[in-house]
Order: sequence, then C-alpha cells, then structure tokens
Amino acid sequence: MTNKEKLDKLSKLIRYFILISTTKAGSGHPSSSLSAVELMSVLFFGGFFRFRINDIKYANNDRIIFSKGHASPLMYSLWAAAGALGEEELLTLRKFGSRLEGHPTPGFPYSEASTGSLGQGLSIGLGMALNAKYLDKLPYYTYVLLGDSEMTEGSQWEAIQVAVHYKLNNLIGILDVNRLGQRGETMYGWDIRAYKDRISSFGWETIAIDGHDTEEIINAYKFALTVKDRPTMIIAKTIKGKGVSQLENIDGWHGKTMSKEQLDAALNEFGSIDKSIRGIIAEPQRIVINEEKIKPYDKIPMAKDKISTRKAYGNALVNIFLKYPKMVVLDAEVSNSTFSEIFKKYFPQRFFEMYIAEQNMIGTAIGLSLRGKIPFVSTFAAFLSRAFDQIRMSQYSNTNIKFIGSHSGVSIGEDGSSQMGLEDIAMFRTLNNSVVLYPSDGISTEKLVEEAAGHFGNVYIRTTRMDTPIIYDEKDIFKIGGSKIIKQSKNDIVTVCAAGITLHEALKAYEELKKEDITIRVIDVYSIKPVDRDTIIKAQEETGAILTVEDHYAEGGLGEAIRSVASVKCPVYSLAVSKIPRSGKPDELLNYEGISSMAIIDKVKELIA
Amino acid sequence: MTNKEKLDKLSKLIRYFILISTTKAGSGHPSSSLSAVELMSVLFFGGFFRFRINDIKYANNDRIIFSKGHASPLMYSLWAAAGALGEEELLTLRKFGSRLEGHPTPGFPYSEASTGSLGQGLSIGLGMALNAKYLDKLPYYTYVLLGDSEMTEGSQWEAIQVAVHYKLNNLIGILDVNRLGQRGETMYGWDIRAYKDRISSFGWETIAIDGHDTEEIINAYKFALTVKDRPTMIIAKTIKGKGVSQLENIDGWHGKTMSKEQLDAALNEFGSIDKSIRGIIAEPQRIVINEEKIKPYDKIPMAKDKISTRKAYGNALVNIFLKYPKMVVLDAEVSNSTFSEIFKKYFPQRFFEMYIAEQNMIGTAIGLSLRGKIPFVSTFAAFLSRAFDQIRMSQYSNTNIKFIGSHSGVSIGEDGSSQMGLEDIAMFRTLNNSVVLYPSDGISTEKLVEEAAGHFGNVYIRTTRMDTPIIYDEKDIFKIGGSKIIKQSKNDIVTVCAAGITLHEALKAYEELKKEDITIRVIDVYSIKPVDRDTIIKAQEETGAILTVEDHYAEGGLGEAIRSVASVKCPVYSLAVSKIPRSGKPDELLNYEGISSMAIIDKVKELIA
Repeated sequence: MTNKEKLDKLSKLIRYFILISTTKAGSGHPSSSLSAVELMSVLFFGGFFRFRINDIKYANNDRIIFSKGHASPLMYSLWAAAGALGEEELLTLRKFGSRLEGHPTPGFPYSEASTGSLGQGLSIGLGMALNAKYLDKLPYYTYVLLGDSEMTEGSQWEAIQVAVHYKLNNLIGILDVNRLGQRGETMYGWDIRAYKDRISSFGWETIAIDGHDTEEIINAYKFALTVKDRPTMIIAKTIKGKGVSQLENIDGWHGKTMSKEQLDAALNEFGSIDKSIRGIIAEPQRIVINEEKIKPYDKIPMAKDKISTRKAYGNALVNIFLKYPKMVVLDAEVSNSTFSEIFKKYFPQRFFEMYIAEQNMIGTAIGLSLRGKIPFVSTFAAFLSRAFDQIRMSQYSNTNIKFIGSHSGVSIGEDGSSQMGLEDIAMFRTLNNSVVLYPSDGISTEKLVEEAAGHFGNVYIRTTRMDTPIIYDEKDIFKIGGSKIIKQSKNDIVTVCAAGITLHEALKAYEELKKEDITIRVIDVYSIKPVDRDTIIKAQEETGAILTVEDHYAEGGLGEAIRSVASVKCPVYSLAVSKIPRSGKPDELLNYEGISSMAIIDKVKELIA
Repeated sequence: MTNKEKLDKLSKLIRYFILISTTKAGSGHPSSSLSAVELMSVLFFGGFFRFRINDIKYANNDRIIFSKGHASPLMYSLWAAAGALGEEELLTLRKFGSRLEGHPTPGFPYSEASTGSLGQGLSIGLGMALNAKYLDKLPYYTYVLLGDSEMTEGSQWEAIQVAVHYKLNNLIGILDVNRLGQRGETMYGWDIRAYKDRISSFGWETIAIDGHDTEEIINAYKFALTVKDRPTMIIAKTIKGKGVSQLENIDGWHGKTMSKEQLDAALNEFGSIDKSIRGIIAEPQRIVINEEKIKPYDKIPMAKDKISTRKAYGNALVNIFLKYPKMVVLDAEVSNSTFSEIFKKYFPQRFFEMYIAEQNMIGTAIGLSLRGKIPFVSTFAAFLSRAFDQIRMSQYSNTNIKFIGSHSGVSIGEDGSSQMGLEDIAMFRTLNNSVVLYPSDGISTEKLVEEAAGHFGNVYIRTTRMDTPIIYDEKDIFKIGGSKIIKQSKNDIVTVCAAGITLHEALKAYEELKKEDITIRVIDVYSIKPVDRDTIIKAQEETGAILTVEDHYAEGGLGEAIRSVASVKCPVYSLAVSKIPRSGKPDELLNYEGISSMAIIDKVKELIA
C-alpha cells in the first residue's frame, strides 16, 4: 500500500466516522467537517503533524487548533483514526456527559482550546507559536484550521498582522474554502485569488491548492515547513459535504445531519471501508527544556507616598516576576498609560507589544495560558470590552489570565465618556469562576497583583488613573475574597462599602461626618468577586444599613455584588454612575454623578434624618 | 488671494486654534490634531465637503466622522474656522459643561457621532454611506478621518470588506499616517506602501499622497469623487505635530499639551495669523426627498400554537414594518437562525447581510441610526459580546438601535457552551438608559418587538432557540417596564420571578406543586430593565419571599435586577446558571444547572420545610 493509498483509506474512514457520529447525534456539522478531511488526514498521517498520542502534555508536541470549531466531528474522527478513541465513544457525540461536545472543549484532552465562536483560533494559535519561538524556544509548529466564513471577522486580520510582525514561521493556517456559509454563499465564494491577494498583502506566505488533492496537500505542507521568516496560509479550494453526493456543494446543509436512510445511501456510495486501519502520527523531536534562570534584580521599593494604582501595578509586575517566572506581559499599545511599560523596561523578552488590537491580544493570551504561561494583559478598562467574546470564551478553555483595566470610571476626567471604563466590573463578574479585584492604593495594588498571580484562573484587576494616597501598611494582608474594615466604632450608623477611588471619597466623608459626631463604618471591598459575605453581614448586623458607592454603572457592579450576599434584614442603598458622563475634572465628575464624599455625606444624613 | 493662499491661511488659523485651546485645557492631543490640518482644511474649505452650516439636520449634508476622535481639537478648530463657533468657546475645551469634550460627543452638534474608542469610525461612516446609497438615495458623501495606529483594529478590516461588498463609492477614508502612536512607532511607521497594498487588496481605490501638500490633497479629493463603484482611501504621509518644530515627528508628545511658554514659541514661529479669515463650506445639492411608500402587504398571522420566540421575532419584523417604515434589518450571517430572514424575504431592500463581522454590524447600525433609521441587528446572543465596545459607544451617540440575541442560555442544548448567551443580560443591563426585554412566547414576542420599535433608544431583546407554548392572548398588553402575574392566589407561599424559557419551567413547577396543595405566584418579568418594581414589591408583601430563576449566569442577570429593586423586608432567593455548561439535551442542561421545574419545586419545598 502506497502512502497515498493509505491516506485515502484513512480519509474514507474519517468520513465514515463523521457521518455515523453526526447521524447518531441528530445534530452537528457533517458537511463542514467533510470539506477538510483530506487537509487534516494528510496533516495528521502524512508525517507532518508531530504529536505523542500517549503523552498529551509533552511540551514539544505540535499544536492543532480547530478555529472552525463546528468541524468538531472531523476532529474527533481524526483522533479516532489515530487510535485515541474508539467508534463506540464517537457515537456519544453531543450526548450529555460525553467528552465529545458540539464544539471542542478541554473535556476532550486532544482539543487544544475551546472554540466555536468563529475567528478566534488564529489568535490562540498565534499565542502558542509565540510561546514556541520566543519563550519555550521549542521547534513545535502550530496549525490552525480556518473556515472561509470566519475570515470576515476582524480578529482574523488582527492576528494576520501581528503574526507577521513577530515573524511566526511556526504558525501555519489552513483555510478551508468550501464556499458555503451558514445561510448561503460566503462573501468571496470560491474566489481563491481574493483570499490569496488579501492575506499575501499582509506579508504571509500563501499557497493555493485543491483541498482534496492528496499530492497538492503534501507539497503544501512540505513547502510551509521550509518557510523561515513568516507565517504561511494554505488556501484550499474544497467542496462542502465532499464525498457524499447528497451533500456536495449544496446550500442548505449547514449544521444539518443525515437521516439513517440518507446515511445508508452515503455509505453505499463509499464502497468498502477498512475499519481496522489506523493512522500513525509522527514522533516529535526529543527536546530537553532548559528553564531560563532569572538573574537577580533589585525590586522596586513599595510606594510610601501617593501613587496611582496603575503605576503600582507596573511596579508589582517587576517585583513578582522572580516568584512567578511563567509570567508574560501583553499590552495593546498603551503601556505608558497602563504602566506595563515598567515591566517591559526590566524584562523586554517577556513583554509583547500587541498594538491596538484587543481581540487578538486576548486570543494570544489564551494560547499562552494553554501553554502554561501566566499572561498579564492590560489596556484601558473601557477597551477590554472590545474583546468580551474572547474573554467569554477563555472561561471555557480554563485559562489562567490576569486582565488589567486602567482608567476606570468617571474619575479619569477630561478625556470623557469614550475612555471611561464603566461596564468592566459587570463584564468580568458575569463570567463563571472569575475573580474581580479593585485596589485603592499602592500597597493593596501590589499585594493583590501578587495574589492574582498565585491564583489559578481568570482574574480582573481594575486600576485608577489618578494618584491616590497610601492608606495601608506593608504588613497588611489582602486576599481574594477578603475586605478591610478601615473605620469602625460601636456607634456606626451605617456601613459604607466602597473600593478603588470611591474608598477615598468614603474616607473623606468619614472625616467630615466625624466633625459632626456622626460615625460611619468604612469597608474596602477590594475583592468584588468573590465578595466578603461574612464581613458584610456582620457590618449589617452591627450598623443596620449598607451604603455602596462605586465609580461604575449601577448594574452588575459593586452595589449588586453586595446585594447578592447581603442579609435581608437591613437595607442596602447604592450610589453609582447614573448619568451619561462628560469631560471635566475628576472631582467635578464624581460630584456630577453623585459618588463623591459630598454625595456620601448627603446620603448618610438623609438616612438619619 | 489664490485658493491655495487662502487654504494655507486657514490651515495656519486652525493650527493656532488647536494650540491655544489645548494649552488652555491643559490636556488633549495637539500633535495628533496638527498632522491632519491640511487634509481637513482642504476638505472643508477647498469646495469638496458640502454642508449647510446653518441647517445641520439637512438630509443631504455630507458627513465627516473623526474616527481618530482624539483629534477633536482639530474638529472644533475646523468648525471655528468655518464660523460655527468662536475663539472664546474654543477655550472651554474639556471644561465641565462645555460642548467641546475631550473626544467628540453629540453635545457638539457638528459632531456626527461619539468616537474615541479607536477603529469604530469607518463602520459608522459605512452605515451613513449605506443609508445614502440604498435607503435615502441621496448624493451626499461620507468622509472618515482615520489614524494610522487604529488600522490594527480588526473592526477596520471588517468595514473595509463590507464597504467593498456594497460598492460604497460614496465613502471616502482619509488615513493620516503620522507614524507615531501613543507609546512609540506604529506597526508600519511611514511605510505608506504597506497600507496601500493591504487596503487595495480588498478592492478599495487607494491614493497615496503627501498629507501636507495642498495641491496633492486637492487632486486626491477630486479623484476620489470620480470613483464610481468602490470606496476610496486617501493614504496621506503626514508629520505628527506638523507646523510646530518643538513637536514635529518627536516621540513622547502623544496626548500632551504645550506649556504657555512653549505655546508662545510656537506662535512666534507661525508669524502673522489672520484671525479674521473664515472658510466657506460648499453648499450641498438641493434635494427633494421622496419617502418611499410601502406597498400594502398581508401580515403574518400571530402564532396560535407553539413557536420559538426567535421565529416570532422574524414574523414581528414583517408585521410592524408598515407602522415603522424607518426600520432596517441587519444580520451577521445567521439570519436563518435568528429568523431575520423572514423580513429579508418580504423586504430585501431593507435587509443588509453583514456577514460574520459583528463589530462592523453594530458600527453600521450606529451610522444608520444617526441618519434616522431604526436598525434591528441580530445574531446569537453570545456573539453580540463580540461588539460590546461598539455597543458601549452607541450609548454615547444617543442611538436608537434594537439588538436581538437569539440562542440564549443553556437551553440551546447540544451545540454547547461556546454558542450559549449567558452574559448578554449583564452586558445590556449595564448600559445607561438601556432597555432589556425577554419574551417567553410568540405573542409576547410580537408585542414586545413592536414596543421596542416605538421606544426611542437602545433596546435588547433576548430570544430562545426552542419552541415554547403560547401562554398569552392576542389582547394582552406588554409594556417596557411591565410584567405579568400569570398565577396568583391568596395562599401563595412564594413568588417565582422568571422570564423566557424559565417562565415555562416555573409554570410546570406551579402545576406540580398544586397537586400537593402548594401554591406559588408566578410573574413573567419580561422587562428586565426597567424592571417592574411595584409588582415585585407587592408580591413580596403578599407572598413573603421571591425566588428568581434564569437561564443566564447569576451576576448582572434577572436575579440581581430584582434584588436591585426588591423590598428588604423579605428574602430573595435565586437560581441561575452556576456551572460551566456542556452539550446535552435542553432538559438535561436545565436540570444540570438547577434552573428546571424540578429545581424550582425542590427550592420551594426547601423554603417551606
């Protein structure tokens, strides 16, 4: 049996697996899977893809991301053809409890990442390729299977630009141009030239091939592996539903499965299938990984005087790197505002400029995290919203990313509403298992950045533009899920819960009210998720009421976080941003929105009136 | 005085305005404004831009979007040079209460849209150009001033693709390649060729010019106005800080203003400035707008049997069009899933396929809304998160957009977590003045879609994938801010607040519990924002407790919406999605997440135990 004959037999077996599993499931995407069968079977079993099937965690395994996640039946069938799972398990596709979900998830251990929201896989692959080339310095390749429909997503073009910038010749895209999207023809149909011109213009190597011609596919991979200074895109003209005449190139079959009768007809068409054949995946190069030692360096002294929390964040990055050498820092072209530039100056080789392309930055961070790194990604809090879909998807890849949003709230001042992060707490709170931290001074920032690094999982840290005074001592301890009671007495008539900039307003209010013999309890709710339920309930019991104050819109923010745990016995009042903010001085805006010390004083007096 | 001499004098005046206003403000972006002075003064005062300065609302005015919103000092100075505002007002830049905010907002009436989050202006311009070409059929042009840094944003490349697809020759981009971003050089620096190759490869007409050469700029606009079948990008090599030797092409001046001493030196360099000169903007073509009459058509009968709310949404679009002829429908390549395709079949000329490029879809909707249309934009609820930054920015442009997210919640079933909208309520609730609606059956869907159309402002409507039974009567009335008490008696021991799919679970629970003589009140909280406070408080008083049930993550969802208004006298319990969901049957997943009728029954029994 020649190599080509064996590959053809394997392709037929994979098609069989795709059809039987999707028909059994009664839902799924057989036609989108069938178009890429040869592209993937040649990659896997033609000697190109190198992977230890019995050592998934081996660092030098090649990587394959199914950016067109709806082709998961193909992915599962490939691994079945490699012997990693049996036909019986294939038939559990999409069943509750099965590892084989509708779109790839980490439940299936050969799946590198959760995909299914289109246009994200190339960025994830970029992160893995960046890791190989610049961090782990390993020769593995990262392959990304792309659909043609998803090429309209802007995130793809972000990844295309950044991959060239970092000369990622170890990143190979495979674009499955099967012409048909979900509801009809794609923007470019089978105009292969359109894809080639556009992708080439960004500096990628491109190869146009017939995606069902084994020889052409072999030659494309051979060529791609010789390219030295740039990523390669293999642009393959394919037929949706290939191999099944009932489906081939017919609109209306997206996301539809065949009935049992249709399946029987298709299998008849296939002729004999060698169900015993299994493909062999090539062995990756044996590599000894030398962990780079970090040279000792002088830490940056912890701030003793007023400092912005964004700057304290930059300092903290430097100071914790020795303890967390898996750290990598990414920024979307605002490192001199987020202060991640401080880390860049100390450790330029661990810092990656991601330019103004937040979606790709988060996708890259997912890829880095899945290769064992701890990415710290920063931009203005407002602009993290640009990557909400990637952030959302990261929770399904079990990533360990630290998101930092600077310039939160109306207190940024003159730049105005477009630059103000006012929805960021809501965005990060709503994610499963997320942690949301909001420090108020230099010391708590440094401590919480370290806490975040030590916590496996996604953490959001909100920082403030303006300088704030130091209110803590270097010996103070800050924990995820904790809080700090800063002011308390037996006569407190209300508890003010605040964080970040509003904590300082609460402390100003405390001082003013004290002059009138009114005492309030002040709690720094620096951990907004998880929130310190016990402390809040105790404060409720002792003071009778809670007043929350936040520089964020009311919905999904600190106020709602506290209401979600508060005891029902005492009222919770809330001050939050409620009007469309505008340009002005920070103090003017805090007053305008009713979240300043004056607003707190007024509310407290109203409560005791 | 020749035309060129006058333009040069105006450019000098504009530079003067930029410098005095930013120095007075003490913050802002003079250097980014200075690079585009000639590009804009020639556009405005060279006879190209046509606008009735005293009739801002004139439908055939040309449009100019500052996508690089931080160049707002240039924008205000241009209009000052046109006589629309005086030097005194320019000196209020960035002051609290001034119309001249740090980034463009509708407070300044000549500003077409709020910008300042980069990479959004081209999509907004696309919407306005689409309106001119296909809807209002007006000859006005839309110009978009773009920064070079923002070209890394994927959203730009979405707009670039879609603008060609719709052959928008009335859209002209002006790319100000001043080489320097915020923290240093951009990805391509002054490589004008890189921009030209990339943008041309997508099918745009491109012209590379010296952005400070009046003659070249004049010729570029002349040429652009002759292009018949495609958009044009004028790619201008410019110098950041142009005209002020202290600033020219020097890194570190982004977003920094000159001191008074530096300003004096700059003005000395300028020599004499003719402060009395004013530019004249050309008069637009006089046009009589003929509103197209909608031909009578048969409405789609309201569903009498079970139907998915997503399908009822599609039907509703058709049925309300006669009453709301300003409607336009956009969809991100899933119109056969969101059912916006029903509208497309009836009114293809009012439907625009936006392909899988959600950011540009929302940006386009902003542009359409600002030209008086009512855009209905739909995709899977999960994928609206892709455009959160555009959605966020839309609130600052006072838009009137109806966002529809289908496939919400775990109840979509087998497709798995990547396709499930579980953060969408939190995302839309947190926006200022937003409305969030979540109908549960065909009738309430149709009624609420009509309510949404009649409400000026941004509205989110959440629809469900699976069919649900009809529970309402055609005569029932549904209002923004309303709710429906579906089951009640004097003996109700708890009030279950639900919406959408969980309302049906609550009704099942009601029937089961009734068999055991346990009665619960059931409220359909179809308006999640604003939420019907009075009805909830009354139910609390009468039943003593609230139980919320939602197919959404707990944070920012229905439960928190209700807690935010609930009386503190009675407890509020909540059931929500709390585990990472997976593939499975809808019922299995509702059970797995503890939001099914069984979970409600268990919780109710626990409460009375």
